[in-house]
Amino acid sequence: MAKATLITIGDEILIGQIIDSNSAYIAKKLNKIGVEVHAIYSVQDDYDEIRNALQKAEKETDIIITTGGLGPTKDDITKTVFADYFNDELVRDESVLEHIEYLFKQFIKQPILEVNRDQALVPSKAEVLFNKNGTAPGMWIHQKELAFIAMPGVPFEMKALLDKAIPKIQQKFKLPFIVHKTVLTYGLGESAIADKIEKWADDLPQHIKLAYLPNLGRVRLRLSAKGWDKQALTAEVDEKVDQLQPMIGDIIKGIEGETTPDEEIGKILSAKNKTLAVAESCTGGQLAARFTKNPGASAYFMAGIISYATSVKSDFLEVDPSIIDQYSVVSAPVAEAMAKGAQEKFQVDYALSTTGNAGPTKGDSDAPIGTVLIGLATPEKVTSFEFTMGNHRERIVQKTINKSIELLLDTLVGK
Amino acid sequence: MAKATLITIGDEILIGQIIDSNSAYIAKKLNKIGVEVHAIYSVQDDYDEIRNALQKAEKETDIIITTGGLGPTKDDITKTVFADYFNDELVRDESVLEHIEYLFKQFIKQPILEVNRDQALVPSKAEVLFNKNGTAPGMWIHQKELAFIAMPGVPFEMKALLDKAIPKIQQKFKLPFIVHKTVLTYGLGESAIADKIEKWADDLPQHIKLAYLPNLGRVRLRLSAKGWDKQALTAEVDEKVDQLQPMIGDIIKGIEGETTPDEEIGKILSAKNKTLAVAESCTGGQLAARFTKNPGASAYFMAGIISYATSVKSDFLEVDPSIIDQYSVVSAPVAEAMAKGAQEKFQVDYALSTTGNAGPTKGDSDAPIGTVLIGLATPEKVTSFEFTMGNHRERIVQKTINKSIELLLDTLVGK
Repeated sequence: MAKATLITIGDEILIGQIIDSNSAYIAKKLNKIGVEVHAIYSVQDDYDEIRNALQKAEKETDIIITTGGLGPTKDDITKTVFADYFNDELVRDESVLEHIEYLFKQFIKQPILEVNRDQALVPSKAEVLFNKNGTAPGMWIHQKELAFIAMPGVPFEMKALLDKAIPKIQQKFKLPFIVHKTVLTYGLGESAIADKIEKWADDLPQHIKLAYLPNLGRVRLRLSAKGWDKQALTAEVDEKVDQLQPMIGDIIKGIEGETTPDEEIGKILSAKNKTLAVAESCTGGQLAARFTKNPGASAYFMAGIISYATSVKSDFLEVDPSIIDQYSVVSAPVAEAMAKGAQEKFQVDYALSTTGNAGPTKGDSDAPIGTVLIGLATPEKVTSFEFTMGNHRERIVQKTINKSIELLLDTLVGK
Repeated sequence: MAKATLITIGDEILIGQIIDSNSAYIAKKLNKIGVEVHAIYSVQDDYDEIRNALQKAEKETDIIITTGGLGPTKDDITKTVFADYFNDELVRDESVLEHIEYLFKQFIKQPILEVNRDQALVPSKAEVLFNKNGTAPGMWIHQKELAFIAMPGVPFEMKALLDKAIPKIQQKFKLPFIVHKTVLTYGLGESAIADKIEKWADDLPQHIKLAYLPNLGRVRLRLSAKGWDKQALTAEVDEKVDQLQPMIGDIIKGIEGETTPDEEIGKILSAKNKTLAVAESCTGGQLAARFTKNPGASAYFMAGIISYATSVKSDFLEVDPSIIDQYSVVSAPVAEAMAKGAQEKFQVDYALSTTGNAGPTKGDSDAPIGTVLIGLATPEKVTSFEFTMGNHRERIVQKTINKSIELLLDTLVGK
């Protein structure tokens, strides 16, 4: 089966200035069409380093995808390396040049320079992957049964070019199907689960792989199966997952599909024509952001309030100040009052609230760092849930968000 | 000078299930102490792959840091590879075992299994980097002048162990100083800047490197200098940056320090005892999140409202419905009314507002996708700024957040 190597080119990843999110994106897309990503290399903007990476990748894999190093400035040398690597020369692509001139005239509105025009230079053997979003063209070099693909590192330009490359990859290589199914569990650790399902795991056929993905209080079990008959493969994976029920059915919370839990909530609420609002304290806007990041969120997400200051809780959410005095801001009564306040104020069907102490120092409350209350108002009732989330600010916030979404989803699906 | 290779071990990065943020974190920390990260390799949980990566890294660099593959389950084989690689055997570390048993008893509250106890096995030559946050110990293997360091992949465990490894690296290797200075510019493209500063860039000495970092409407110019005399190095970089003024002084917006612009705002507001609130539409909570992510934000960040539904804008921010009717929700009068509304309602000194159409479909407004208005209320006045941000939802939102923060910071520093 076809294997790929991803090579990211550029010092900014190696000095930690940016996180390489492109590779995960590309890997996910390749995986979906049955291409295994063998390795990811991040190398410097350096002639020999890039060349060496290409050589190693060529030995090990069929598809070599580079990102980065295609800008107009001197530190960008990917094209030069490619031309030399294939004993080729750089030639001007007229349609790319035309596009660059158009972008400069219409959008960039700055005088075009020779270095900008030079972005239209590509190796003569390259098939251009036209980049309508930017000045650096993508390139595909067919080298016998191998494919070398170079794309710019700017994520949204890369994504559009990858969309062009994917069908070409599917055309060139005979690809198997890959079926993933991820079982969501809460309540047991990785090793305890492994112990309970040991025999089942040992009996998995060679073409089905199991991975444990522990993350912030939940462990996901991912089955990945590879084969040529998609239907049979899917049935086989489904059967394996069903076999888990008698062993760990009590901790299985569902199957992770293509959608994330927040997207799932969006789907359910939109379909039922129900609405949602949030009242956030310790999550500081990130809970709302989790919903509003999804296109179409405005169909169900009405509003959020970030009541960071205690006074905002009483002034806007009508949390009775005496409750705050009596129980402190980090308490079940306050979480419930916040959820209820948001539900009433914003006239929504469901409201989530968060209040907690995420540290690093104690705030307006005596609650220990890591104590979090999540409130949930539904058309039927208002409840709250208390959690202890450790003592790491970022993790406390992320866990709180995950937990809030999980609680709402459980309620919506009637778990 | 000492060079490092980072090796991330685990299929989850290669199938794109997680983004490798660890490497950027480690790279940044190493860079700060004068260690150059030569390359980053992401390889599968596979005996030969890990071994090959170690071999390659050993040839090219002095410090080899692996993350991942130290869990209790069968797919985690890093330790086995290490033991074989150094012709060593795994032995039980009693203090680690004690810690594992303690964690199980106190926190995990599940029966301890043999595989959990086996996490206390380490190569006999390894120095244990004690992991108080988890069950997988870090390991340091001294191999003559080389250092092999293995850490778990869970970010917060890794970070704590890296803090232990850093001083040891500084002790073992003679490290130069690295000085970075990043100049923030707005208004000109990468190549136009390169053209204006060409001679200056060509004249940079060998030990000072220049990089262009274009990102969502701004270009950062990063100078990185390496040497043994920190004071002289800093002076030299400062001088080079000063020389840029006559060439591109009009587009230089400041120097990027260790702090991000939102942290900078936090510092200024806290010092002046001033407060901030936000009223968000298209940014959906993410603008607030940018501020509340910073510890200590509660000193100045009072509240936020996410007025996603149009009615919330009039009901809570007292935006006159007739203004919305007349100008649409995506308009300067609405942005200004939102900012003013937030400032008054939350009784803060400064308020930012965002309203725009981020797509993918047109919302309640006729404004074309990508049109964004940012409102800013200060103690002196209320203003707004209109931008056209392209047609990519995620980028529109991120650009809007960056721009909002930039506008507020400019106001606070009197630019």
